[in-house]
Amino acid sequence: MARRSFAYAREPAATAGQPQGVPARQQLLKRHNLALVLGHLAGAPNLSRAQLAAGTGLTKATVSTLVYALMDAGLIVEHDPERGLIGRPGSPLALNAEGPAGLGVEINVDYVSACVVDLTGTVRLRNKIVRDNRLVAPVAVLENAARAAARLIDEAEAGGLYVCGLGVGVPGLVDFDGVLHRAPNLSDWEGIGAAERLCEMVGHPLRSVYCDNEANLAALGERWFGSSDDLSDFVFVSGEIGVGAGIVIGGQLFRGVRGLGGELGHVTVDPNGPRCSCGSRGCLESIAGREALLESAGLAPRRTDTGTPGGTEELLERAIAGERTTLDALDRAARALGIALAAFLNVLDLPSVVLGGFYAELAPWLIGPVTDELSVRVVNSSWSSTEVVASSLGTEASVKGAAGITTRRIIDDPAGLFPEVLTKT
Amino acid sequence: MARRSFAYAREPAATAGQPQGVPARQQLLKRHNLALVLGHLAGAPNLSRAQLAAGTGLTKATVSTLVYALMDAGLIVEHDPERGLIGRPGSPLALNAEGPAGLGVEINVDYVSACVVDLTGTVRLRNKIVRDNRLVAPVAVLENAARAAARLIDEAEAGGLYVCGLGVGVPGLVDFDGVLHRAPNLSDWEGIGAAERLCEMVGHPLRSVYCDNEANLAALGERWFGSSDDLSDFVFVSGEIGVGAGIVIGGQLFRGVRGLGGELGHVTVDPNGPRCSCGSRGCLESIAGREALLESAGLAPRRTDTGTPGGTEELLERAIAGERTTLDALDRAARALGIALAAFLNVLDLPSVVLGGFYAELAPWLIGPVTDELSVRVVNSSWSSTEVVASSLGTEASVKGAAGITTRRIIDDPAGLFPEVLTKT
Repeated sequence: MARRSFAYAREPAATAGQPQGVPARQQLLKRHNLALVLGHLAGAPNLSRAQLAAGTGLTKATVSTLVYALMDAGLIVEHDPERGLIGRPGSPLALNAEGPAGLGVEINVDYVSACVVDLTGTVRLRNKIVRDNRLVAPVAVLENAARAAARLIDEAEAGGLYVCGLGVGVPGLVDFDGVLHRAPNLSDWEGIGAAERLCEMVGHPLRSVYCDNEANLAALGERWFGSSDDLSDFVFVSGEIGVGAGIVIGGQLFRGVRGLGGELGHVTVDPNGPRCSCGSRGCLESIAGREALLESAGLAPRRTDTGTPGGTEELLERAIAGERTTLDALDRAARALGIALAAFLNVLDLPSVVLGGFYAELAPWLIGPVTDELSVRVVNSSWSSTEVVASSLGTEASVKGAAGITTRRIIDDPAGLFPEVLTKT
Repeated sequence: MARRSFAYAREPAATAGQPQGVPARQQLLKRHNLALVLGHLAGAPNLSRAQLAAGTGLTKATVSTLVYALMDAGLIVEHDPERGLIGRPGSPLALNAEGPAGLGVEINVDYVSACVVDLTGTVRLRNKIVRDNRLVAPVAVLENAARAAARLIDEAEAGGLYVCGLGVGVPGLVDFDGVLHRAPNLSDWEGIGAAERLCEMVGHPLRSVYCDNEANLAALGERWFGSSDDLSDFVFVSGEIGVGAGIVIGGQLFRGVRGLGGELGHVTVDPNGPRCSCGSRGCLESIAGREALLESAGLAPRRTDTGTPGGTEELLERAIAGERTTLDALDRAARALGIALAAFLNVLDLPSVVLGGFYAELAPWLIGPVTDELSVRVVNSSWSSTEVVASSLGTEASVKGAAGITTRRIIDDPAGLFPEVLTKT
């Protein structure tokens, strides 16, 4: 498999491998049809060429050509034909689970995690390092993340996968160019192209690099890897030390007009409330972020090496035991979350809220009071009700979304990252 | 000019007049080209056929055919050619200012207003009836509005205009089907198709009927009739007794996923604040709506027959005189407005806020403290700053937007409302 480096290019030019003399229009059509065939196989694996032709409306000859190009690039594989009861079936085709893969890295306030997802969407490798990054210099955090990433790449490639793209989630404001402008809970992360820097440190050629806010990637993770199949309009709440949100509308990430939207954690819940790390007062995060909640429940945040964020385990145990101070703290946090979410829903009129991060574990105590606040504070709630559910991905939504960015890009437009599929005839 | 009734149809079928045997694809192309030519003339009036051909890339023969169809339907006119210095110029073409027109009606809490806009975007007639509608039955309010509308239609048509569409703005939650679900400041307006009912009462055949929240129409009014030419991403704040907002993204109205979004007035500013008409507590409207502000300034709301909302004049006089109680009340209202707007901007990351309704008059006292709150409470404010300006349309933005809905529809797709343009060859 030819490996070309397209590092940093947000949209590698698919015309790079375009032979002279072939009309651009024909190339565009082929590019579209390649995506059609690959997308069809992603939705329904183990189809024969004839079934693919019937499903896509393309001729069998066209399907054969496209399948050949996709196989040659390692994007699909042909399994041995199984003899059915009637007649001789064609060879079943499927996405190549041992081919291109995406690497996801999530840099958060008190952990770094990484995972590798193959083209079929299966998480093949994962890794999480719990460590407080708040007072650590960005370069040291990135080096830490780069080591974890390099280790996963080596393992993945030793196992036959081809890690061809990187997605990076960070806990801050990331613009459309992938530059991190501000991470209120970290030190000195202003103006950093985290994915680019990570890419240089890892030193592995990549065809796709993407950086976004961790909550945005978590929303995509929930859409692609979560338990609900028809989640196409929702807000994903990422509850960590910081509180973020990713908005999905019509199946697509909605980042606001200039890319820095979706900042649920900094919606004012109480104008005279506690000082927030962002400089404002009474932000949701300052009342219901993980440390604020632990403090409100009388629990000091503590670090563990078990991979579980410090203190949350104890909070959970006390909540299960019905301890009054804990339940009151959870109720206060839930009402604050309800007030901030109500602002989002008054703006966006969305049907679903998914509680993620550590809120997912605490969902049994949060969903009731959050829903109560929404029913009072969202003016359209009687006609446009909103369901509040817990994420099934826990704290892994973001890193899975980060890894899925690459594999989704391949499926949505194989020629975008694998221009060689256009030159095969 | 043939007048056919397409009342209530949100998208009249342009294929209605499609002759048998003409391929659908050719009709689609013609429909597209008709819009191209009309849109071009809307942007640059007084072009010759040759200039239109050069500007649109269509052949002169095609332009001639399209111009003939548009003229025959009364959408454009040909002026007398003026001899230039060099050569013989073609006859200049322009939108027909004496042809199709849109009627706008705004039903608000304490007034009903109406206006007629011609195809060139000029407001030709206007009308405003100040009357408290809060305790009046919907049917009586609608009859009042219908009388005003009928009077304007008669006047417009006596002057040679053809009123072919109606837009209605109402102070409440309107879904994508034009049904008003809730108007917190009016009585018994639940589940009313206001535009449809108004249309029946007026009894005038119409090709286009549209109903929306008054703030959404005001945002469109600001975009189409306001003083700024390049306002394509903004939130328009409609300050009346109720406080609403219309969001425009990429030049298009953004109504939220299910149409009931943009509810700025019901964003919680103070969780334990005053009871709001919607049933919640501490909504922006309950703190900074017109009556709440007048009360806070020690002024009782009062009605006048001058067309000026009661009490606001006095508030303005006192503010100009520098009266302390008034200035303090304005500052409190502005800070509440800033907190609610900060939630919108944390979600949407928009570059502009336009203060409309009675906030436009009070803008000199509001813009400073609103901007201060935004700079503290919008987490992205250092990288994505937001300009706060006053609407130049005062309280007329909504009714102008309501009237403009029809004329914009014609310009964007003339065959949509005038299918007869497709049958002319």
